[in-house]
Amino acid sequence: MDKIATSLTKNTKEPAKTSSVRIVVAGPRGKMGSEAIQMINNQKEFTLVGCVDHKESVDTDKDVPVFTDLHACLQSTKPDVFIDLTIPEVGYKHTRIALELGVRPVVGTTGFTDEQLKEITNIAEKNGIGCIIAPNFALGAVLMMKFSKIAAKYYSDVEIIEKHHDQKVDAPSGTAIKTSELIRENLAAKPHPSVKETESIEGARGGNDNGVHIHSMRLPGLVAHQEVVFGGEGETLTIKHDSIHRSSFMQGIKLSIEKVLNLQTCVYGLENIIDIDH
Amino acid sequence: MDKIATSLTKNTKEPAKTSSVRIVVAGPRGKMGSEAIQMINNQKEFTLVGCVDHKESVDTDKDVPVFTDLHACLQSTKPDVFIDLTIPEVGYKHTRIALELGVRPVVGTTGFTDEQLKEITNIAEKNGIGCIIAPNFALGAVLMMKFSKIAAKYYSDVEIIEKHHDQKVDAPSGTAIKTSELIRENLAAKPHPSVKETESIEGARGGNDNGVHIHSMRLPGLVAHQEVVFGGEGETLTIKHDSIHRSSFMQGIKLSIEKVLNLQTCVYGLENIIDIDH
Amino acid sequence: MDKIATSLTKNTKEPAKTSSVRIVVAGPRGKMGSEAIQMINNQKEFTLVGCVDHKESVDTDKDVPVFTDLHACLQSTKPDVFIDLTIPEVGYKHTRIALELGVRPVVGTTGFTDEQLKEITNIAEKNGIGCIIAPNFALGAVLMMKFSKIAAKYYSDVEIIEKHHDQKVDAPSGTAIKTSELIRENLAAKPHPSVKETESIEGARGGNDNGVHIHSMRLPGLVAHQEVVFGGEGETLTIKHDSIHRSSFMQGIKLSIEKVLNLQTCVYGLENIIDIDH
Amino acid sequence: MDKIATSLTKNTKEPAKTSSVRIVVAGPRGKMGSEAIQMINNQKEFTLVGCVDHKESVDTDKDVPVFTDLHACLQSTKPDVFIDLTIPEVGYKHTRIALELGVRPVVGTTGFTDEQLKEITNIAEKNGIGCIIAPNFALGAVLMMKFSKIAAKYYSDVEIIEKHHDQKVDAPSGTAIKTSELIRENLAAKPHPSVKETESIEGARGGNDNGVHIHSMRLPGLVAHQEVVFGGEGETLTIKHDSIHRSSFMQGIKLSIEKVLNLQTCVYGLENIIDIDH
Repeated sequence: MDKIATSLTKNTKEPAKTSSVRIVVAGPRGKMGSEAIQMINNQKEFTLVGCVDHKESVDTDKDVPVFTDLHACLQSTKPDVFIDLTIPEVGYKHTRIALELGVRPVVGTTGFTDEQLKEITNIAEKNGIGCIIAPNFALGAVLMMKFSKIAAKYYSDVEIIEKHHDQKVDAPSGTAIKTSELIRENLAAKPHPSVKETESIEGARGGNDNGVHIHSMRLPGLVAHQEVVFGGEGETLTIKHDSIHRSSFMQGIKLSIEKVLNLQTCVYGLENIIDIDH
Repeated sequence: MDKIATSLTKNTKEPAKTSSVRIVVAGPRGKMGSEAIQMINNQKEFTLVGCVDHKESVDTDKDVPVFTDLHACLQSTKPDVFIDLTIPEVGYKHTRIALELGVRPVVGTTGFTDEQLKEITNIAEKNGIGCIIAPNFALGAVLMMKFSKIAAKYYSDVEIIEKHHDQKVDAPSGTAIKTSELIRENLAAKPHPSVKETESIEGARGGNDNGVHIHSMRLPGLVAHQEVVFGGEGETLTIKHDSIHRSSFMQGIKLSIEKVLNLQTCVYGLENIIDIDH
Repeated sequence: MDKIATSLTKNTKEPAKTSSVRIVVAGPRGKMGSEAIQMINNQKEFTLVGCVDHKESVDTDKDVPVFTDLHACLQSTKPDVFIDLTIPEVGYKHTRIALELGVRPVVGTTGFTDEQLKEITNIAEKNGIGCIIAPNFALGAVLMMKFSKIAAKYYSDVEIIEKHHDQKVDAPSGTAIKTSELIRENLAAKPHPSVKETESIEGARGGNDNGVHIHSMRLPGLVAHQEVVFGGEGETLTIKHDSIHRSSFMQGIKLSIEKVLNLQTCVYGLENIIDIDH
Repeated sequence: MDKIATSLTKNTKEPAKTSSVRIVVAGPRGKMGSEAIQMINNQKEFTLVGCVDHKESVDTDKDVPVFTDLHACLQSTKPDVFIDLTIPEVGYKHTRIALELGVRPVVGTTGFTDEQLKEITNIAEKNGIGCIIAPNFALGAVLMMKFSKIAAKYYSDVEIIEKHHDQKVDAPSGTAIKTSELIRENLAAKPHPSVKETESIEGARGGNDNGVHIHSMRLPGLVAHQEVVFGGEGETLTIKHDSIHRSSFMQGIKLSIEKVLNLQTCVYGLENIIDIDH
């Protein structure tokens, strides 16, 4: 074990060779996990070297060993990156174990406390390796939010319409609320109606989130969609994201794997590894 | 005058030759009126032969005589069709005068009472000539409503989003309310949420018009837009109308001029001269 | 067997009670077939009573008998409707057998010759029962085409943009070509450019299908989408269909099951059972 | 005159007070010029103090003096900013005169040679004042291009569809070509079709601009619209600009007036004064 730990630690001194990134996935049978494995297998620069699951087995399909214990798995498979797509209770524990063994974590589980994040950042920085924790890996959605925040500097008027399948209980969506927050940080002028508006049917003007109107459509045949519409004199600028399958999260996981190799700290939120310089 | 009246009446016995429809416009300096004159001048099968306005003059630009009195105008210019784009108080009086002189009216003014409509229909039928009264000449909007009503027979779930400039006071728009009414007459099943929905921001789910949710967006840079979205398993069908200029009403006026020549009664509403057989 | 045949034939004298339509599915393990079974199980007015497959078995999941021979299946299960989602070679044979046993077929296989269709129509009419053969069960797409054909009566200018996943080889899509054909039957005026157009990049103006321009977009993240855009003075009317999953075909199969119960002949094409009266 | 020049020059030492920016417009009767004057009059922080036109007069409507000579105008009215919306032949001459008198130019005319731009930059820097030259003041279009360039870093697949009125001769639009160029500078991978594509109607797949497909739609009822669609696994990201009136340029002119007050050099292109930090 000592030898393995040493070898793993050595990884942190020089950037991992991206030509063949060795990866372990925890939660391989979940919806996200199985998509992640498919994505990894489709990328020639990634190699799946092991999985962590409830029950030990050898998944002949994936042709990689499946461990029940993360510690044993990492020591045996010596990966560059550990992807955690399990559940909140397990995510924190797994992240610590990986960091302590010198393996860079990419974590999709939520529920980390501020204290836990601080602690994880400390370990990552002490070991000089990267860690990415992202409650949302939808790269397109993150770009939509970033662009909306920038555009808000140049417009005073904006409304959001988000459209989801009819099984969604809450409205507006979390993404719409987050987008509205980011927009309001930058909005060129405080939004206010040009005229005194009246509603002949209550709610027609949507939800008023501190001046930003949000409209939530719910229909079968939709999955997860959002349009942010900025209005100026004689023109509108629309930023729109349409997600029709959870495979859309894979682009964010792929980007995270690439980025985590060159970080020496913990980054929380996909938006913070996206580079908008151009 | 007798001679003129006779000649005008004669017009009603045989369909007017559409190769050169003679037209008089009342309200030529209003927004709609000036667009109508431009449209007429652009159609080689139409000829503007006179106008009715507050003050008598000869508009050298249009090169047609301008009368202050409709009766005198129609007797002098002997048109096939009379277009009224004035104001409610004048519209009814003008329509009667035209019908009595055997000239087919196309009327864009609103405010006719049921009794007035009945009376006008009687005169039109007695004289055997057509009359079209339409509070809305937007042909595209009428098609959108007709298609929405048909589609409603095949879907149980639909939402409407209408988008207008930020000077519009009322929400939802009259067109959205009318569309919702038409849809509900035909909807395959009573609309109801699939799940118990909650709103973290009040109004997010829009106005609930007897089960049809209507969302009203208001922004500078918009003019008058509406989308009707039907949702079924794995698919959505959207019918969308974008109007960016009042010239969009001209197609409806043009169609009305063509149709009124072959009617022998009064038709109220553009939707009732649109033929969806195919 | 005679008794069964008689009882099946009797079905044709009185409309089947729609409160509980008994259904047999051939091809239950295919993509379409498995969706169809799921749809039937979700409708309380439909009952799956049997399946026809390559190998005999009892599918405990569906809890219905699986036959290898259609004749035996229909005699044993006495269904109202037989759904064929197999392959062209089998479809025709199955349709004949069902009709001869007095069971109404709803057939999704393609490749019927004109002669075969004529023969099937004869049998259907002789037995006084309905039969629906549809190469495409996408109800929303059929409505899009129907509405486009109607709208074409009122516009002279239209373009089509269809968007599909990047695995699609041919462009434009069959639906776009069919839509263009239907539109051109009705178009208000022969389409022609208003100005002499030039292309600095060849193909920019899309494919010119006898005056109707068709644009084909291919991207990952798309499935099957089409927009038909009609342009008039100051306005556009857009009819748009977005299909993101093959479950979208189920609405067409469901409608066909309902309609076939009240037909006394064979109808080819979903468009011919859609009623646009309103 | 010396006194005036001195006072004008003094302006350059301290940033102009934005609370009341004094502005002169050249080309006040053109389409852009008249919009600009209306915009200035609507902003309480801007004051129109003079115009330059072919013929001298006092426009009582605007209540400001109209000069035929720029030199005389600037000396008499002592503005902070000079807006040139004339023609290429005049633009360069005007820009030099303004800079030499210490007035900051905002120039919308095109046709500057590289040498002229260099010379103007020299004068601006020598005098320590700002100058903005922008062939396109459509702020929304510039943001669309900037966001597209950024998004290209995260996607390998993108197509552009631009839609214009049917009087536009050339295809694709200049904006589409410019967008494609910017995208290709950043695109995550060289674009290439996933399959061997075939066109049954030539041009259906649009114009292929070095791997980026561009589609040009032309219809009455459209003005100037563009959509840039990025496709990834299971999702699409769309950036869309709709311009329906030339007033949309005013936001760019307004921004330029604000920015030019704090520049000490010449900036070419609106995109270079837009700040995407956030």
